[in-house]
Amino acid sequence: MADEQKLPERPAEGAEGSAEGGEKLSKKALKKLEKEREKAAKKAEQEKAAAEKKAQEDANDVSKGKYGDTPLVGSGDYKPLSQKRFKLHEVAGVDNGTEVLVRCKVDNARSQSAKLGFLLLSHGPDSIQAVVAASETISRQMVKFAANIPPESIVDVVGLAKDVPEPIKSASISNKELHIVQIWVISRAISKLPIQVADADTRLPSEDKSAEQEEGGRALVGLNTRLDNRVLDLRSPLNRAIFKVRNGVKKAFTQFLTERGFIDIDTPKLLGSPSEGGANVFVVEYYKGKGYLAQSPQFYKEMAISAGFERVFEISDVFRAEDSNTSRHLSEYTSMDLEMEFTDDYMEVVHLIRDLMHYILATLAKNFSREIEYVRGKYPSEPFKLPEKSEDIPIIEFEQGCKWLNEAGIEVDDSDDVNSQQEKALGNIVREKFGTDVYILNGYPHKARAFYTMPRNADLGSKYSNSFDFMMRGQEVLSGAQRIHDHVLLSKKMRSWQPPLDPESAGFKDYVDAFKYGCPPHAGGAFGLERVVSNYLALQNVRQASLFPRDPSRLTP
Amino acid sequence: MADEQKLPERPAEGAEGSAEGGEKLSKKALKKLEKEREKAAKKAEQEKAAAEKKAQEDANDVSKGKYGDTPLVGSGDYKPLSQKRFKLHEVAGVDNGTEVLVRCKVDNARSQSAKLGFLLLSHGPDSIQAVVAASETISRQMVKFAANIPPESIVDVVGLAKDVPEPIKSASISNKELHIVQIWVISRAISKLPIQVADADTRLPSEDKSAEQEEGGRALVGLNTRLDNRVLDLRSPLNRAIFKVRNGVKKAFTQFLTERGFIDIDTPKLLGSPSEGGANVFVVEYYKGKGYLAQSPQFYKEMAISAGFERVFEISDVFRAEDSNTSRHLSEYTSMDLEMEFTDDYMEVVHLIRDLMHYILATLAKNFSREIEYVRGKYPSEPFKLPEKSEDIPIIEFEQGCKWLNEAGIEVDDSDDVNSQQEKALGNIVREKFGTDVYILNGYPHKARAFYTMPRNADLGSKYSNSFDFMMRGQEVLSGAQRIHDHVLLSKKMRSWQPPLDPESAGFKDYVDAFKYGCPPHAGGAFGLERVVSNYLALQNVRQASLFPRDPSRLTP
Repeated sequence: MADEQKLPERPAEGAEGSAEGGEKLSKKALKKLEKEREKAAKKAEQEKAAAEKKAQEDANDVSKGKYGDTPLVGSGDYKPLSQKRFKLHEVAGVDNGTEVLVRCKVDNARSQSAKLGFLLLSHGPDSIQAVVAASETISRQMVKFAANIPPESIVDVVGLAKDVPEPIKSASISNKELHIVQIWVISRAISKLPIQVADADTRLPSEDKSAEQEEGGRALVGLNTRLDNRVLDLRSPLNRAIFKVRNGVKKAFTQFLTERGFIDIDTPKLLGSPSEGGANVFVVEYYKGKGYLAQSPQFYKEMAISAGFERVFEISDVFRAEDSNTSRHLSEYTSMDLEMEFTDDYMEVVHLIRDLMHYILATLAKNFSREIEYVRGKYPSEPFKLPEKSEDIPIIEFEQGCKWLNEAGIEVDDSDDVNSQQEKALGNIVREKFGTDVYILNGYPHKARAFYTMPRNADLGSKYSNSFDFMMRGQEVLSGAQRIHDHVLLSKKMRSWQPPLDPESAGFKDYVDAFKYGCPPHAGGAFGLERVVSNYLALQNVRQASLFPRDPSRLTP
Repeated sequence: MADEQKLPERPAEGAEGSAEGGEKLSKKALKKLEKEREKAAKKAEQEKAAAEKKAQEDANDVSKGKYGDTPLVGSGDYKPLSQKRFKLHEVAGVDNGTEVLVRCKVDNARSQSAKLGFLLLSHGPDSIQAVVAASETISRQMVKFAANIPPESIVDVVGLAKDVPEPIKSASISNKELHIVQIWVISRAISKLPIQVADADTRLPSEDKSAEQEEGGRALVGLNTRLDNRVLDLRSPLNRAIFKVRNGVKKAFTQFLTERGFIDIDTPKLLGSPSEGGANVFVVEYYKGKGYLAQSPQFYKEMAISAGFERVFEISDVFRAEDSNTSRHLSEYTSMDLEMEFTDDYMEVVHLIRDLMHYILATLAKNFSREIEYVRGKYPSEPFKLPEKSEDIPIIEFEQGCKWLNEAGIEVDDSDDVNSQQEKALGNIVREKFGTDVYILNGYPHKARAFYTMPRNADLGSKYSNSFDFMMRGQEVLSGAQRIHDHVLLSKKMRSWQPPLDPESAGFKDYVDAFKYGCPPHAGGAFGLERVVSNYLALQNVRQASLFPRDPSRLTP
């Protein structure tokens, strides 16, 4: 009926030749019109017949009330099923033939014939094969309905969990098959997804364009497409593994420090002045004035130490307005910071961080071996070499590292920083010498570090400083140092900095003042969480370890 | 000598009357000049004598090498003491007369005579009295030095821990006194502090100007002065207690949810579009374009649910550009968010959050009774009434709450939100009826909640919605709801919103799309951490529960 109304109306009697502002309808046009009307009438008739047939079939549908789309869960119209609910992974252990109700995602659905359909159902890492077969109690309509549910839809399935003669390789639950008794769509996915979840379960295309850019007959989907559709992307087992490891790092960090009396603090991310010199800082319109986004909690964690907190840590997002689109940089990333008092020697802090690092890495190896293996299947990497004991993680003096590099023919100046290539090379040398993928480079050149770094000799002419980096696979993942806790030396150093910094200026005054009130000697450091994860898992891009990454050209989703 | 050089030079011979551009020196002026020179010469003589005397005294100083300011700890010049180090609290338990080395803060120092000085030393919550008395081995110079150390300085003290006949009331370690053998200043505080730590250990002045504005003879220092000097302010036992409780809330929240399979996520704070309608959002200069600071992780935690994370939580700072300077608002605050799938009924989530809330409050009462008591000494409040079992925390329908209010003569319209006065009144009614300071108000009017809130009947005409608030002492501390997980209903609702929202626009598209790919029914909520703490401790201002609070007129320190 609706379609019919869209047809041009039959011209009114005597309209021919008298059309207002219109053209006369030629005989040809009239004939065309007539044909269209006939076609439409025929279509309507066909539709009516189909509807009647369907109504009749529905009336005869033995499965009526056993399948369909439910009213929205949580609305008054929705009625829960009364069967006993199971977690999907529990189904593997039930007796043969047990009736179960499970809430699942449809990974895929297909019909083998009008009488037989197969679905792969999943929940988290668990999956099971389900079969829907026409029978005295299961109608063909129900088979058709089930086999046509779009992938990624959420369903409730009542089924009999039956033993299978041969293990089912395509599902994680290989000993059971679900014989569907009822199937209800809880949330229906659209049928044309922008990317397939399976596409997100492969490696990224290589940056080397000449390399193979497909895997298992599947063209590799680029990072941008994946990130544009991050919700689907994140559903892949690969991403599930990455984010389990990420979560594992955070948890291990928190647990280790909490057990050692560290207090978890929250420092402000909105600042009145650009800190640390003012480069690469995001500007915020703050009411009638300006604010700046924190590049790190550095000043505030030190102020907490001066305030008597003794040992603090913070896991929070920080912001860097670096306009560089490398695979190592993010505009917003999760910084895992710690800062603590020490008594006589900042090496007390280096040793504690070494224990922390060892604990994190040992925990990953122990608790996430399945996830690590899964990722390694996509991004091949050598097993991570971690010394058995924390104290076997070598602490190498910067000066010594430079000597080794120079001996290996890589020219470096030991009074300046090393670049990332040199870092990498040194990582290889250390791996050779000590059989470890993690080590500490200690005593960086004074001028290569931030202004608040303690020089070796409380003397601005010091060549080296009380600072250190933690290296993983030859890449820096933590940077740390003793900080100057003396306001006189700090002010002097700031004034002699290039370019000079004014300790009395708005951006620094509160920070410098904190050391005028008596402050214990302290040191600390910060891990970049995404770097730890992407480096440990040998991912291609640091963005892969961020849930919704931000860079100069990406602020969505 | 240095002073002498600052004196005007004697005019050159014949200079009189020929001064270039200068005035002739009159006889009077010459005489004055002569007098000044005489005075200076005398002063120099006195200084020389004093220096000689001091050098002689130093040479005779039996305590030489037992006191002074150390070189900067961590510098090459610093040499650690060899005595055994003790934590201050350990000193209470040592044998009478044991020699201990402790790193402390000087709370105050005074000399009773030239031969006798007293210091109150502290570390964290622990404190001890120390005495320095002139003797054959302790010089008067050393007594003078020790008694003049500015409060808040950090010192190393070697002393004999001696039993005392009468308990010392002014120190937490009341059974011992430290007889100083050596005292070294590690970090010297300036002598004029902007506020005294003791000033920060009192309540705030009342907003009622007619009330008493001093306590124990001490004028109450206002919040702004305290916050301007937050590092000193935070050193007070009052603030130490507040932040211990704050930390306890975070820890309990994290622990409870982690044990129940929630994943700790980090969602972006930099957004491409103002979310949730665009009001009260901070604008960021993002490279060549604009960005916006997140007002909550709402969209992202829901997207994580759609991405298959099942149960997520996040503790992170969020940003509200509300230009209101009330005692309840912050421009940046710590939001404790959670979001989870549920099966059939969002009350599953309400019950879990009820258990969470009960766990947090029970943990506080159990583990922080000392801190709570301390704060109550400054901010008197009724002991917090928490039902023994979680299931005894009442869940009250909004409609019912309104009835009670109306019965009590407080007129409310049950199709609209209640204001904070009405909330407070209802809190009192509930306290009367159920003997609890915490309860849940459930089923808010549809139009009083955010657009993504699930209406009761999947029908935009619904009067009520699947939403709830958790109340503490009659104030909302958590707001939560079931969210619409159906993109058709969500889009429809957005278009009918006042003012209408476009589901296809940049700010909403990714969010709405997340529900096109199949998404489980889900609900969640968010605690404002500072509100929980300030409300629980009956503080005067929410800023007191933020380490470095931010409001329209404060971006520092």
